[in-house]
Parts: sequence; C-alpha cells; structure tokens
Amino acid sequence: MAVYTHVSSEDIDAFLQRFNVGRLRMAKGIAEGVENSNYLIETDTARFILTLYEKRVQLDDLPFFLEYTSHLAAAGLPVPRAVADASGKQLQELAGKPACLIEFLSGISVTEPTPAQCFALGVSLARIRDVSDGFSMQRPNSLSVAGWHELAAKIGGRANEIAPGLAQAIAAALADVSRNWPTDLPRGAIHADLFPDNVLFTGDTVSGLIDFYFACTDIHAYDLAVCLNAWTFSSDGRSHMAARAAALLQGYKSIHPLSSAERTALPILCQGAALRFLLTRAYDWLNTPPGALVTRKDPLAYLRRLEHYRETAG
Amino acid sequence: MAVYTHVSSEDIDAFLQRFNVGRLRMAKGIAEGVENSNYLIETDTARFILTLYEKRVQLDDLPFFLEYTSHLAAAGLPVPRAVADASGKQLQELAGKPACLIEFLSGISVTEPTPAQCFALGVSLARIRDVSDGFSMQRPNSLSVAGWHELAAKIGGRANEIAPGLAQAIAAALADVSRNWPTDLPRGAIHADLFPDNVLFTGDTVSGLIDFYFACTDIHAYDLAVCLNAWTFSSDGRSHMAARAAALLQGYKSIHPLSSAERTALPILCQGAALRFLLTRAYDWLNTPPGALVTRKDPLAYLRRLEHYRETAG
Repeated sequence: MAVYTHVSSEDIDAFLQRFNVGRLRMAKGIAEGVENSNYLIETDTARFILTLYEKRVQLDDLPFFLEYTSHLAAAGLPVPRAVADASGKQLQELAGKPACLIEFLSGISVTEPTPAQCFALGVSLARIRDVSDGFSMQRPNSLSVAGWHELAAKIGGRANEIAPGLAQAIAAALADVSRNWPTDLPRGAIHADLFPDNVLFTGDTVSGLIDFYFACTDIHAYDLAVCLNAWTFSSDGRSHMAARAAALLQGYKSIHPLSSAERTALPILCQGAALRFLLTRAYDWLNTPPGALVTRKDPLAYLRRLEHYRETAG
Repeated sequence: MAVYTHVSSEDIDAFLQRFNVGRLRMAKGIAEGVENSNYLIETDTARFILTLYEKRVQLDDLPFFLEYTSHLAAAGLPVPRAVADASGKQLQELAGKPACLIEFLSGISVTEPTPAQCFALGVSLARIRDVSDGFSMQRPNSLSVAGWHELAAKIGGRANEIAPGLAQAIAAALADVSRNWPTDLPRGAIHADLFPDNVLFTGDTVSGLIDFYFACTDIHAYDLAVCLNAWTFSSDGRSHMAARAAALLQGYKSIHPLSSAERTALPILCQGAALRFLLTRAYDWLNTPPGALVTRKDPLAYLRRLEHYRETAG
C-alpha cells in the first residue's frame, strides 16, 4: 500500500522506450495493491499502471498471473493486460525489480456496493469461471485447507491476544471445515481475492477486474464464497446484507447455474473463505508492528462472518 | 508520502457535489507531498488533486497558502488553484479533516535536471518574485535563522550520532550565518521549498509549480538560494553542477536582475539554505523510527552542500 521502490521520471521514460507507447507525461506513485510498488503513468498515447514486484510476490508465479490475465482479457473481460515489448515479452526488469507495464482501466472501487453492483459482480465472476475453462496453466492455492492449518499453527495461542477465545474458535472452525471440505466440485483458475477494491465500476457496470496476485487453481464455487464474504457484509462483519447476497447469486446464476453439489457445499465454502481471511489477518495483526507501512486489517470482521455462516449452516 | 486518511469513492463522489465538476470516474491515493493525504481523481470534466490536511499543516496557515496560490495562478503562473464551491469557499472539510479540491497540472518531476530545465526554473522563480510584489498577506518563515537555532538546540549533541563532528559543523555554520545574515534585502512571499519534485515539466517547459506548504514571507533571493541548493548538486551533495547553476542564475536574471547587494549576499544565503535542510533532515533522522511511513532523507547530502558554499565563499 505504498511505493517501496522509487524510480525517477527519467528512468520511467527510458523504460517506456521498450514499448511503442510514446513519451512519459505524468507519473504518480500510488498507494494501492498488494505489497508492490505501483505508479499511475500517462504517456502521449495512453495511461498505464507500472508495477514493480517486491519480495512478497514469488517471481515463479508471475508467468501464471500474466498468462491468466491475458487469457481473460482476450476473452473480452475487462482485465488489464501487461503490455508486451517489441519481442513479445511482458515481464521486464526496472530498478533491479521484476516489472510490468499494465493497461490502465478507468472506474472506481465502491465501499458499499448496491445490489445492482453485486448483481454485475456476480455476472463478471461467472464469466471469469466460464472463460477459465479454456485456461490450462496450474497454480496450487497455498491458502486453502492445508495452508490454513499451517497458518493456524503459526498463530497458535497468540490468537487470544486479539480476542479472548479466538484460538478455540479458529480450531473448531478449522476442524469442521477440514472434515466437510468438498473434494469433487468443478475446479479451474480462480481470482480468489475479488474484494470490492479489486473491482472497478462505471455506474453499475463493471469496468475493471484487477489484482490477480492471489489467482490460483481451486474450486470455482470457492471464488463465489470469497465474494459472498467480501461483498455482502458491513465492513466490520456485524451485519449481513441479504439483498446484496441474493443479487450476487442471481447475477452469477444468470450466467452459470450452480449444480446441486455446489449449492450444498456453499455454506462450508463460505466458512472456509471466512476462515482464510480471518487467519491471514490474524497472522498479519500479530506480526505487523504498529506504525508500519501496511495498515492492519481487523481479523474480527472475519470472525463475525465465520460465525454468521456457522450459525446459518446449522 | 502516503495516504493517512482513507476516503471511500462514495464519499469522494458526494464531496464533489459541492463543486460543479461532474461525477467521480477514478480515485487513486497517491504517495506525494508533505504529510497530507492526496488522491488523484478524475471526474466527467477534469482531473484534480484532493488533499486532506493532516496534523503537520497548521490550519491557520491554510488561508495564506490558498490566497497565495490563487494570486500566482491569476497572474498566469502554472500554479494549481483550489477549486471554490458555489459559495466561493476553497477550504472544505472531508472525513473530519480540512480538505481542498485542487486543479491538476500535467507534467513530470525530473531527478536530474538539464541546464535547459534549470534555466526554465530560474525564469519561473523570478516570475514568482515579480508577481509576489502584488501579494500583501504575510506569513513569517518559522524555518529561518531563529528557527534554525531552535532546531539546532533540539538536536544538540545527538547530531554526532549521524556523523562524528556534525554537531560542531552545525554550530560553526549557524554562528557564521547568524552573524552575516542580510537584513536589508527585498522581501516578499516566497515558495521556500521549490525542489525538483515540486516542479512539473513538459519537455523543457515548466508546466506546474506545486506544494506551497512552506510558502512564507522572506528574502526573495533566499528562494533562489534554496533552488541553487536543490537543483545544482548531485542528490548526495558530492558534486556541484556548475552548468546547472549558471543556467538557473541566467534564467532568473533574464526576468529579474539581481542587485549588487543580492549578489554579495548570495553565498551566505546559500549557506543558510543548506543549513535549513541539513537541520530539518537531521532532526527528522533522529526522530523518525526506521520503518515508519516517512522515508528518512540523508542529512549529510546537505552538510556537503553547506561545505561547498563555505569553501567557495572563503
């Protein structure tokens, strides 16, 4: 959420010469994305996001992300492609870091999505699913059930420093989710992190789907469970917005119907998605010094979502 | 250099209704400026910078900054104005913070200015001077000689934690500068912080003069001394670029000749300007925890400039 690597305008302008995109007119470091450095830049011809990949992104994973976004863009989804240089190469290097020049998509991220926007998100998510069937590269989801066990073990009893009883709540949910996790649902490439800040809207139209740096191969309906968590609660997790959830599901099903097995599994997938964000937030909470560059996000907002799904599933 | 106050797109869009500028199309938090929160935003009609003033800016000073930038813009200088609402008010409130919607100016900040760019900067600086004569508001410079004494006292012997002997070097320079500081040179409103990152260029043309949050009433030629420090050395202060300095002076004098008294005083003004940035950087260095939101700037880069001016003045 900050600019970690500073690149001079002169160096950005020189970098742009690798592409046929004109000269630099503007460059602003932006506070966005996962732990990468991002610049919003404008040239004589267009706007772009220049991303420098910092240490948190595995270099080996970048080809998967670049191929997947190119695949989705080629299928007509509003997904920003990395621009290729004259030799066809998307992955570049700048200031000693892996770097990409990425298409800029206009639009705004909403904080309180309307049901109409949830419907549009559902449509986009189901289109991602349909289009992903033609994409064959694989990337295991390191943040699925096995990864949650690892994270829970690392956090251990310290969870109770965040809230009394949190360690027990995590252990109970983890046991349930592990026992009931579906193994036979359709799988493929998924976004896995399609939060409102990763979706751009122009009015009620989705104009951009961004930040594919958690994309991986996993259960398609799990992507829907992540969105139900991220889009249909108040940010503190205290209120479930049923109208948003209904609209999201309706939009999704208007493109891709859910099978009976998927419908049955949805409550446990939603618990798993809640647990995933509860665990990563709890881990970051305990391991990020106050005042550091990254803003800590409240883990309990996802404990409340987890409790919602555990209660309504019962 | 980060976004301290997060404002949702919905709240920015609602804020824009106070002005006649259309609806929000894009909002990106940018890593720029002094310790304020800044968003680059785009509406149906234009681009703007939305600034939320954080605690480091004194609320009482904002009218001076807003009036001064409006004055310079009205005189035709490329200075971004704060947009007024229907009632003519520029200073607003958003998310509990004082806030302004500021015109966006295109262009890039250079890191290694060419002599042609230094000439253009000199022209702009002298035009600021000429135009400032019609501006009557006053704001004392809290970072002139008396302020340097206060800062030096606060830093004290801890300067030697930065470099052995630094406390003595500061004391000697401060004594010389205080004894020789001119008292009879022409004064008026000055920018006082016109570093390369506060100047936007389109090619060799100055397209923007920004960040007036240190503007104050002081010696006009001191503004030139600040620029000679900031524009005519390698960033580490080790190399003085004589061609840049000559071009900057030539540009300045092409608009406003320096008086004999100003020419005589320039070496001591340059020492003072070097000392000013040495002191604030040294203070910040000693009082900013590593890993904090603000990047610490090397104080010694200004010790080297100070030494350059003390040697060449002798």
